[in-house]
Amino acid sequence: MVTKGDATRTLILEHASGVAARDGLEALSIGKLAQDLSLSKSGLFAHFGSKEALQLAILEFETERFIAEVLKPALAAPRGVPRLEALFDRYATWALARQKTGGCLFMSASFELDDRPGPARDKLVATERDWLETLAHAVRIAAREGHFSADVDPELAAQELHGIQMAAHHMVRLLGDDEAIPRARRAFTRWLAGYRKP
Amino acid sequence: MVTKGDATRTLILEHASGVAARDGLEALSIGKLAQDLSLSKSGLFAHFGSKEALQLAILEFETERFIAEVLKPALAAPRGVPRLEALFDRYATWALARQKTGGCLFMSASFELDDRPGPARDKLVATERDWLETLAHAVRIAAREGHFSADVDPELAAQELHGIQMAAHHMVRLLGDDEAIPRARRAFTRWLAGYRKP
Repeated sequence: MVTKGDATRTLILEHASGVAARDGLEALSIGKLAQDLSLSKSGLFAHFGSKEALQLAILEFETERFIAEVLKPALAAPRGVPRLEALFDRYATWALARQKTGGCLFMSASFELDDRPGPARDKLVATERDWLETLAHAVRIAAREGHFSADVDPELAAQELHGIQMAAHHMVRLLGDDEAIPRARRAFTRWLAGYRKP
Repeated sequence: MVTKGDATRTLILEHASGVAARDGLEALSIGKLAQDLSLSKSGLFAHFGSKEALQLAILEFETERFIAEVLKPALAAPRGVPRLEALFDRYATWALARQKTGGCLFMSASFELDDRPGPARDKLVATERDWLETLAHAVRIAAREGHFSADVDPELAAQELHGIQMAAHHMVRLLGDDEAIPRARRAFTRWLAGYRKP
């Protein structure tokens, strides 16, 4: 059962995750969020307790959304190349949906929190590791299925895939280069071709 | 002639660029910098006038260093593949030298400033565009020299190269995965091989 408290919490986190992606997790202000959402500051404090707890809650919330919108549906695709295609496409859709509202929080937080030890950084590291391991594991399966050469290095291939996504995100959001999206798609096609069994 | 004022300015910018890479350009405080360097706050204001001017000065300073340490020496390498190797190596050395002190400012600022219009963002965009165009042009030359296939897409190849560098930076600094550096080197070797003339 979804209570009124849960619904308010979700509303706050949806808004706050966009603010965090746009302005940074450190720039969050409980007072400003309360104002944005016409809620009382004390009500927001009742939900999250502190800015640090709010930052952690935002990363947990985005991770849950990421699992629901990217991981789960992609892992339902057939093993091998189709699953890798689904992982690439789902992530691209995720990032594109956030293009006008701060971009992918995991990308911006990766550079904001890299030098800020604490629970928020730990949560982000866990999410990013899971993502890279998911990519590496999907590569491993593609080799087992006979789609990729058996000598593929799954961690290397995962890092390359992650790089294709990072560069596209950077070029679209910082440089305003929308051509970076079809270019990333071509880079992915080249990446697949490079590992396909001859 | 280097005046005492120039030397102080350089000292301030060297320190401030590390702080900016670690904590962010927005987190800079002229008061805190003055304290760090045992200088007067009014002295720092005399050099930069405002936090915005300081942010811009830091990006200009890092861009000059980038030109001197990465671009100029790499562009002195022979045309074609050797020059691409020099661009890759020089950037890797640049990022590695900053690994313990906040990483590459251009990477962190790319995600911090993407939603913050202003002169600092404009300067960063110009630097990043120049870098990507330098990479694309070096690819174009590699094709002209007959090292790469003539049908290479220079913008695509530059974006891929940028992605290899971004992913390595992210995995070393956020995830503490030092293996990401030799992996990036292997990704670069695969990238070269993928474009080499058969």
